Amino acid sequence: MHAIVYHGPGRKAWEEVPKPMLQADTDAIVKVDTVTICGTDLHILKGDVAAVTDGRILGHEAVGTVEQVGSGVKNVKVGDHVLVSCITACGACRYCRDGSYGQCIGGGGWILGHKIDGTQAEYVRVPFADTSTYAVPAGVTDEEVLMLADIGPTGYEVGVLNGRVRPGDVVAVVGAGPVGLSAIMGAKLFSPAHVVAIDLADARLEAAKQFGADITVNPSREDAVDIVRGLTDGLGADVAIEAVGVAATFEQCATLVRPGGTVANVGVHGGPATLHLEDLWIKNVTITTGLVDTYSTPTLLRLLATHQVDLARFVTHRFALGDFMQAYDTFADAAQTRALKVVLTA
Amino acid sequence: MHAIVYHGPGRKAWEEVPKPMLQADTDAIVKVDTVTICGTDLHILKGDVAAVTDGRILGHEAVGTVEQVGSGVKNVKVGDHVLVSCITACGACRYCRDGSYGQCIGGGGWILGHKIDGTQAEYVRVPFADTSTYAVPAGVTDEEVLMLADIGPTGYEVGVLNGRVRPGDVVAVVGAGPVGLSAIMGAKLFSPAHVVAIDLADARLEAAKQFGADITVNPSREDAVDIVRGLTDGLGADVAIEAVGVAATFEQCATLVRPGGTVANVGVHGGPATLHLEDLWIKNVTITTGLVDTYSTPTLLRLLATHQVDLARFVTHRFALGDFMQAYDTFADAAQTRALKVVLTA
Repeated sequence: MHAIVYHGPGRKAWEEVPKPMLQADTDAIVKVDTVTICGTDLHILKGDVAAVTDGRILGHEAVGTVEQVGSGVKNVKVGDHVLVSCITACGACRYCRDGSYGQCIGGGGWILGHKIDGTQAEYVRVPFADTSTYAVPAGVTDEEVLMLADIGPTGYEVGVLNGRVRPGDVVAVVGAGPVGLSAIMGAKLFSPAHVVAIDLADARLEAAKQFGADITVNPSREDAVDIVRGLTDGLGADVAIEAVGVAATFEQCATLVRPGGTVANVGVHGGPATLHLEDLWIKNVTITTGLVDTYSTPTLLRLLATHQVDLARFVTHRFALGDFMQAYDTFADAAQTRALKVVLTA
Repeated sequence: MHAIVYHGPGRKAWEEVPKPMLQADTDAIVKVDTVTICGTDLHILKGDVAAVTDGRILGHEAVGTVEQVGSGVKNVKVGDHVLVSCITACGACRYCRDGSYGQCIGGGGWILGHKIDGTQAEYVRVPFADTSTYAVPAGVTDEEVLMLADIGPTGYEVGVLNGRVRPGDVVAVVGAGPVGLSAIMGAKLFSPAHVVAIDLADARLEAAKQFGADITVNPSREDAVDIVRGLTDGLGADVAIEAVGVAATFEQCATLVRPGGTVANVGVHGGPATLHLEDLWIKNVTITTGLVDTYSTPTLLRLLATHQVDLARFVTHRFALGDFMQAYDTFADAAQTRALKVVLTA
């Protein structure tokens, strides 16, 4: 079969590799029908994720058809149409029992396209298939469901739910890439007073409006703190969601939040930030970090089926599976192509 | 009357000053019966708290007898025996309505001995008396109740409740001064598996054992992270409580906590800390900060009356009000005197 194989920083290829085989009786082999590329894959290609080594097949998002299951797989059957989630869950460890699948210590967590071969391929081996896949419901498209492999639950859980967004809140979202947009979409479910999207790219701010932000701020022209305080009697945002992954935007969130508010960090960080405890110690601020657990995936699938969230909106570019290298180019050059999510179909 | 008056960094005096008078109809004048000194007062005397200016009477903890009330005071009466809390609450602003009295924007918050004259005096003016004092219940001593003016609710709310301590948890408390000891005492109410006290002073670790810590660690001799991981299958503490107020101990808490755990900062910080987001982003860690709100004071008064907490244990030294300067010396030299809380009685 063919797959996108990582060959060290800056090097990848769509090349022929052996088709995966069952390794444990809880595995499934899934034929990939629809697959996408994540910003995290670009981080990997920059060499930022040391655990990803030469020869690894990338990708942690797919919708596919089950081709083979191990003898221990009870609920997933050959021919089932399933979402392959970015998080694999053993289902049995203390973290999985607690719904913290992203922190699985029983062999799961974020492993696809990271510690084991991933989904950017014609076939993928999915460990713990019973607890790591979701049946695709009727009446929704593969493309829509694919958006729930990672960005849907990441924005919702790590941004909106960790941030404890409540009706009437003023929510500031710093970074309007796909995960920031997902957080905006998720925040709207809680009837906030205002969602303020903050990004340096006007094209992304336009997208943020489409996803539900009512106020957009380009910090190259405007002062985000002034604007947010102007909306909040000078206090600051109830919730500030960091969806970039650099120290400056995290520190901005800590400045944007009101006393008693929450900073929810969603961004993937490569270095430390300065935490101004001399200001924050007295402010009753909560800061959360998190890898997605995907405990919200069933909820989001229901919200998709009832048309309460519009996930098709994320998909800006479509390719055939054989054009994977071109899809990467389009996604990596989002400033020019205005790509949000690119979808490849077998 | 006499009072402890601040005269700039390093300078204070027990001197004659005018007796306070009612300024608003919601004020009460309280005769101070029992009063103590807080670590924060020492911070002020170092010049760390810029809002405290020359001429300010210090102190934000007292038990006293109401001598006079304004016409707008409805529930507090002349002759009532009351706890004067470190937090003054207007009772009407959005923060007070939400129970976040420490963040009061209606003229309260931490103001006594900070923005207005405080309790280290023969008399004190207490604004918003109805919502800033608590009746002393029967069957408890003034000394015990005095421990609920600040350290009791601070350790309990900002450490234990913000940290979301639950039965079976391993709780690490960094810093075993009075507030750290209060957090240890509060954590024990939730039946943790272990409370690990970490401090450089062996005398404080001895005190920590008295307050309920079952494991003590002196980092000058032992590796706290190794010990905590050894108790937790290598994962780390469920809750790490910072009760010192310097960057190094905050950063240690971020290292001590397990994935999915909480760092509750209680310490008063004068500078920033480094937040290692490159490690923490993926770990589902929650970090909280806070000034005490004192919403738990009624609960703690009940726990005191039912003997479920032992607050008398904090009091190591007793003085007459006229010996205030000597009490300060004893408290400031805690390394030698082993003082926890010093109590002065009129």
